[in-house]
Amino acid sequence: MARIVQKFGGTSVANMDRIRNVACLVKKEVDAGNQVAVVLSAMSGVTNQLVAYCQDAAQLYDPCEYDAVVSTGEQVTVGLLAILLQSMGIPARSWAGWQVPIHTDDAHSRARIVNIETDQILSRMAAGEVSVVAGFQGIGPDGRVTTLGRGGSDTSAVALAAALDADRCDIYTDVDGVYTTDPRIVPKARKLPRVTYEEMLEMASLGAKVLQTRSVEMAMKYRVNLQVRSSFEDIPGTLVCDEEDIVEKEVVSGIAYSRDEAKVTLQGVKDHPGVAATIFGPLAENNINVDMIVQNVSEQGHTDLTFTLPRTDLPRALDVLEKIRTVAGYRNLTHSDTVVKVSIIGVGMRTHAGVAQKMFSTLAERGINILVISTSEIKVSVLIEEEYTELALRALHTAYGLDVH
Amino acid sequence: MARIVQKFGGTSVANMDRIRNVACLVKKEVDAGNQVAVVLSAMSGVTNQLVAYCQDAAQLYDPCEYDAVVSTGEQVTVGLLAILLQSMGIPARSWAGWQVPIHTDDAHSRARIVNIETDQILSRMAAGEVSVVAGFQGIGPDGRVTTLGRGGSDTSAVALAAALDADRCDIYTDVDGVYTTDPRIVPKARKLPRVTYEEMLEMASLGAKVLQTRSVEMAMKYRVNLQVRSSFEDIPGTLVCDEEDIVEKEVVSGIAYSRDEAKVTLQGVKDHPGVAATIFGPLAENNINVDMIVQNVSEQGHTDLTFTLPRTDLPRALDVLEKIRTVAGYRNLTHSDTVVKVSIIGVGMRTHAGVAQKMFSTLAERGINILVISTSEIKVSVLIEEEYTELALRALHTAYGLDVH
Repeated sequence: MARIVQKFGGTSVANMDRIRNVACLVKKEVDAGNQVAVVLSAMSGVTNQLVAYCQDAAQLYDPCEYDAVVSTGEQVTVGLLAILLQSMGIPARSWAGWQVPIHTDDAHSRARIVNIETDQILSRMAAGEVSVVAGFQGIGPDGRVTTLGRGGSDTSAVALAAALDADRCDIYTDVDGVYTTDPRIVPKARKLPRVTYEEMLEMASLGAKVLQTRSVEMAMKYRVNLQVRSSFEDIPGTLVCDEEDIVEKEVVSGIAYSRDEAKVTLQGVKDHPGVAATIFGPLAENNINVDMIVQNVSEQGHTDLTFTLPRTDLPRALDVLEKIRTVAGYRNLTHSDTVVKVSIIGVGMRTHAGVAQKMFSTLAERGINILVISTSEIKVSVLIEEEYTELALRALHTAYGLDVH
Repeated sequence: MARIVQKFGGTSVANMDRIRNVACLVKKEVDAGNQVAVVLSAMSGVTNQLVAYCQDAAQLYDPCEYDAVVSTGEQVTVGLLAILLQSMGIPARSWAGWQVPIHTDDAHSRARIVNIETDQILSRMAAGEVSVVAGFQGIGPDGRVTTLGRGGSDTSAVALAAALDADRCDIYTDVDGVYTTDPRIVPKARKLPRVTYEEMLEMASLGAKVLQTRSVEMAMKYRVNLQVRSSFEDIPGTLVCDEEDIVEKEVVSGIAYSRDEAKVTLQGVKDHPGVAATIFGPLAENNINVDMIVQNVSEQGHTDLTFTLPRTDLPRALDVLEKIRTVAGYRNLTHSDTVVKVSIIGVGMRTHAGVAQKMFSTLAERGINILVISTSEIKVSVLIEEEYTELALRALHTAYGLDVH
């Protein structure tokens, strides 16, 4: 007997037939003698509709009221799944976030889970009842409903698995696992049987939107045995686990890309101490998240500064940079929103030399110009022109020996 | 300065434009210096959709889960109205039933309000904040969400008005008041400026679906100053009030009708003590609500028994009656679902003679046969063939001097 958390996303509960399918997947675990808690998202499209209502009501809406509105979608699906499970003879009840309760901080619309009270759910699970918990939501210190930000149901599931000390946390989704890269672009992409938390974290943050980044962080912190699998096909998924649990480590295990990038270059910036703060301070104050930064060597006291930021923030960033032009003291500004970030990811990099070099040479051989480079312990990212995305992904996938055999 | 509860039904909050209109109607009361609490229904159609989901999930669904699902519609509208009010510069916050809290009994899906804790809301209203409260819902002794039955938002509003000791409870709806009869059938129907609680109660229970019956009972019990008015037109509505507050009382103030009727006649029932219990006991056990009952005089120890019940319950009632045929000992059963109940209502009946007689003669003059008669202190109801509905309503409306001049 094991204690299991199963999480199903919006496409898995998109309509009554899909929710029936979810009920069958839950029944399977119950029939196998497991104690089961289920975490659900809203029906796909519903949360978007609710968000649209809020935006229609006011441009700057109260995040407390936003949370009250958008948290309702999950309360519908959990009730319906509980009814379906009961009709299959399985004791079940639904739990809204405030009922568990799942305590969060007071950062409405992007709250963080502080603590989950598990007494009630644990005793009911021990008595054979399936707990169907609304994802994406909790209750703040003010007694009002909070939500965890888009994709927050993944985090709800991992947090619940950690709090329940669950043996497994299965994330059911509309893809059947984590791939070496996007199979829509690279047909030879392979499904990874296992991937480390660290790698998954980099992939999630780099736009491979299988899991919410925060859920992976939490799984890593609490060593939650995480599995990504399909709710439509009964095949093995991808296990997200510790490095030690992976026997044959590849040097590079995945290639991610993100089109959500824009590049800004400031030319002729006066090179003196504090200039970076002059430029990036105002951007940060405007909630613009700068990602990659490169500064060229200084020539006669001036330098060029290039950095990337989310594409949607570019107009606002240009506004901010225009306003600080005099104090920042740059000569010229160029920008582009036709760039893409391509990253190779793998824990094997820590112990292998020449991994980045292979990336640079592979791209050079294809005539692909690298605009910006940034590296971390288990990742190398390059910024290239968007039109080379597919070419770069396929070339790198082959170069690192990731193609399906 | 007055303390006011405003209630808006589903058609009044059917979409964002309508909710904006509601915000303006709330603003008007705030601008007039009043303390305002608002009670909302779900967007029209939403609750029906949620109910359909539950019915789709299982024929016999857990009412606790049903409540968890169907209570979400109101949580959406209250959040959206709070956002709109805030955007107009009016302090406002939404309240789910469990947050107020509105305590109910544990009769899920048809719960009754036990107590409303008003401390929080009263102090916030005193501080100038509009309280936007989700109608139709509360929290049971088990800590789970309850709902009050269809149309329950009227009851929420009246209960809140009573608990807050409000000066007025305005029920905004898609009709502009209570009419002497259905204006779609009788073009000469008049809007009543005032109607007594007792009359409103009879009208509500007889199918004039302006207010939920329970809300009128509660308004009468707690002497809540109730007004029915249009959310689309700024014209006076109908005040539901004490008899003493109506100066010119009509003998008959309204004519109601209900098509939701079926008639059953049992012929040749053995006439002995206890026979009624033998027949009506099993019907009651099956939750079939028998309304009018007439028993003819006994002939040679046998009698005919006619009674009415809700049309939707007829098939189940026939089942029950077939099963008890032997013990009930009736010779023959006939039934009809093409009957309608027409009622004249007026507190003036208490002090006037010949009111019923005028009804009978008016119908007789039109050749309309009366199948069953039942009377109460302020009401006379007759059962007639459905095809005569319009003819009967118009004739009675004229006979009792209700036609618009």
